[in-house]
Amino acid sequence: MSTPEATSAVTAPLASTPPRPSTALLTDKYELTMLEAALGDGAADRRCVFEVFTRRLPAGRRYGVLAGTGRLLEAIEDFRFGPAELEWLANERVVDDRTLEFLAGYRFSGSITGYAEGEVFFPQSPVLVVEGTFAEAVLLETVALSVLNHDSAVASAASRMTSAAVDRPCLEMGSRRAHEESAVAAARAAAVSGFAGTSNLEAGRRYGIPTIGTAAHAFTLLHDDEEAAFAAQVAAAGPGTTLLVDTYDVRAGVERAVAVAGPGLGAVRLDSGDLGVLAQEVRAQLDSLGAHDTRIVVTSDLDEYAIAALAAAPVDSYGVGTSVVTGSGAPTCGMVYKLVAREGRTGQMEPVAKTSRAKAGTGGRKAAARRLGPDGRAVEEVLVTGTDEQVSAWVSQDEALRALQVPLVVDGAVDARWTGPEGLRRAARRHRASRDELPRGARRLSADEAAVPTVTLHLAG
Amino acid sequence: MSTPEATSAVTAPLASTPPRPSTALLTDKYELTMLEAALGDGAADRRCVFEVFTRRLPAGRRYGVLAGTGRLLEAIEDFRFGPAELEWLANERVVDDRTLEFLAGYRFSGSITGYAEGEVFFPQSPVLVVEGTFAEAVLLETVALSVLNHDSAVASAASRMTSAAVDRPCLEMGSRRAHEESAVAAARAAAVSGFAGTSNLEAGRRYGIPTIGTAAHAFTLLHDDEEAAFAAQVAAAGPGTTLLVDTYDVRAGVERAVAVAGPGLGAVRLDSGDLGVLAQEVRAQLDSLGAHDTRIVVTSDLDEYAIAALAAAPVDSYGVGTSVVTGSGAPTCGMVYKLVAREGRTGQMEPVAKTSRAKAGTGGRKAAARRLGPDGRAVEEVLVTGTDEQVSAWVSQDEALRALQVPLVVDGAVDARWTGPEGLRRAARRHRASRDELPRGARRLSADEAAVPTVTLHLAG
Repeated sequence: MSTPEATSAVTAPLASTPPRPSTALLTDKYELTMLEAALGDGAADRRCVFEVFTRRLPAGRRYGVLAGTGRLLEAIEDFRFGPAELEWLANERVVDDRTLEFLAGYRFSGSITGYAEGEVFFPQSPVLVVEGTFAEAVLLETVALSVLNHDSAVASAASRMTSAAVDRPCLEMGSRRAHEESAVAAARAAAVSGFAGTSNLEAGRRYGIPTIGTAAHAFTLLHDDEEAAFAAQVAAAGPGTTLLVDTYDVRAGVERAVAVAGPGLGAVRLDSGDLGVLAQEVRAQLDSLGAHDTRIVVTSDLDEYAIAALAAAPVDSYGVGTSVVTGSGAPTCGMVYKLVAREGRTGQMEPVAKTSRAKAGTGGRKAAARRLGPDGRAVEEVLVTGTDEQVSAWVSQDEALRALQVPLVVDGAVDARWTGPEGLRRAARRHRASRDELPRGARRLSADEAAVPTVTLHLAG
Repeated sequence: MSTPEATSAVTAPLASTPPRPSTALLTDKYELTMLEAALGDGAADRRCVFEVFTRRLPAGRRYGVLAGTGRLLEAIEDFRFGPAELEWLANERVVDDRTLEFLAGYRFSGSITGYAEGEVFFPQSPVLVVEGTFAEAVLLETVALSVLNHDSAVASAASRMTSAAVDRPCLEMGSRRAHEESAVAAARAAAVSGFAGTSNLEAGRRYGIPTIGTAAHAFTLLHDDEEAAFAAQVAAAGPGTTLLVDTYDVRAGVERAVAVAGPGLGAVRLDSGDLGVLAQEVRAQLDSLGAHDTRIVVTSDLDEYAIAALAAAPVDSYGVGTSVVTGSGAPTCGMVYKLVAREGRTGQMEPVAKTSRAKAGTGGRKAAARRLGPDGRAVEEVLVTGTDEQVSAWVSQDEALRALQVPLVVDGAVDARWTGPEGLRRAARRHRASRDELPRGARRLSADEAAVPTVTLHLAG
């Protein structure tokens, strides 16, 4: 079998980014009350394996895109209970003194493996596997799910958009339609799936994503007339800027734009109306004015379907807002964080699962690999349970399997290759390669089943 | 006319909450490039009025709920460009030196009025009105929309849930299905609309919302059997705790729960299966075991429709996750931040609006009032443009009008009554009163038009 991507470690400093606050209280209360009870009866020390997976994809989706892993690793590094957090927990009597003492020294010391960020996933894919004592692993449930569910929802939608856009750049402009911090994460998740830039400055600062944007209708309306507005913008930004031409009348706006900036005008932006028709008209007008290299940027409630519908229009790039930051109809993934194995009273690891009818699970730690056909395209997602020796023997005997899980945290130490700007670049590369490996037809936008089936093999225990 | 709520100022300290970071880069790049160009031609100093409103409600919704105002006011206080932000902007050459100098001294010094947080709104309702120079007001666009669009989407969904739940408490448990910071804001927005508690600890710390939660399936699976898990939980939390009874077999789980905790068991939680049927069975079983006061909490993908369908079931409270934090099908509001008036070359304020066909606007600052019928219920949303004198004369002559806009920021000073835990309590009170004022039938869940029409009156200019 082939081995997962492994290049030399890059420790990318987060230049001029302020220190990150503690993430420890971005947590459901029950993680702490479970800890308290488990410290009480000694079960807190039992070794555990938790897996993160989703039971199904959003209706009609053929694949999901894992995103957020880099952010999650940073959140785990910042998951510390400082004096302010402990004081509040004590004042509110959330947990007892023994638990507070445990929290004061808390530092995740276990190990985490998972799909590389950017990898596509399917139902049941174990995208994250957390191993440690119950005490240290249970505390990470909420923050792990928050990060992965949000970021993967955005990346999964974004991948459909960049796929529909083919070679034209997609630009993320949705900050205003998302919580101010999730907007930063959404810009990052869109970049995982191939978006070329973002309007969000903080996303530029934190992750090195190119930032884009020039002016809104307010800038034109601020001025006594459109010409004055265009002149001010060109004076500040040069003729290579993008002028927004649909405040009053598009045809007059384009004429003024070229008159002010000259035929070297960088681009015009259309933010309303029937974009396909308008783009045709504006392209013809620009060409007639000699502005052959002036590009056309379209924005205004675009989603993957609108992008696909504009494939034949003379559009140079797509600015996408609401639909990408809200996951285009699927604003969260249904990922869950489930205990699948734990040390029993004999000291042996034992598989466990909820067994009542609804939401029943499959116990045991799962190794994951993607089976590739002769054309290099994915055929199935294979999950295997068994002893470590059985699993590695089974996987290594089969050249058609690509192993999907990589080490992310080893004995509490986060692998810095997956975090910061370098982690994002790696994730974007992984996504391109992973998406290219999907079966033919899997990138169509029409509703269908998961692109490949997930099969689970239980090797004799 | 009646006057908006006005009680004495309460300066609630955010006890043991760490200092908040700068919000200045949670911003679209074009706000800064517009500023740069406007500083270049002098238009930056023009006095401006920006309004925040939505063109339409999500399909089928009858009203929206404004939320986030208190958070926004805090974000505006924190909207400062410190050395780290300025350094990054300079290194990336986002704007020129003159603009950097302006940003270094930036502090919003204008005024903001708006609907009181918690108020219901309709299409075109001017929920926020920002007045100041173009330079100072344009910079707040992105963060204002991010906060209000997210929080109002959650509060609008949450209001339908608490309405459907009637007197039974709704508890917010959706952190894991939202970005980790938007989860905190979502808990707050749900509380605006009457949710009684949240699982999110940080929301408890920041806003004083009661926190809830006891244990997950993992806690039961951690133990060698269900009885051991229940015993550990009761030992830690006392018999008044909530035991999760559906890990293996619900009937056996309930029997064990009462056997371990006694008939004084606080509650059982059902997190899967047909909740209506299960609740009936569990209630009968609890009663037969003498546990008449043991409550039944249901969770598992509840939304407003599921809550309504459980109205006749013996359920004591609803734990709501995904659907509330994602706005139950409408994860963002379509609020926009539009320039409606600005100083012209003569120094007079002039109404402005985009005039090309799509997304055309209505120029001029709008005063807003709700017309109430003889039964005290809303009849219409009235927006009025004209001079200040005309508007106040018009509004004050009519006893049936309730003015909707209150001062939030006066000459740069934030009114602390709207922020922090006290601001949240006020918002929740305002929401109850505002929702009670809706026309009969407006709280039905079925799809329909906005509950009242919005009319705009233009008084002679």
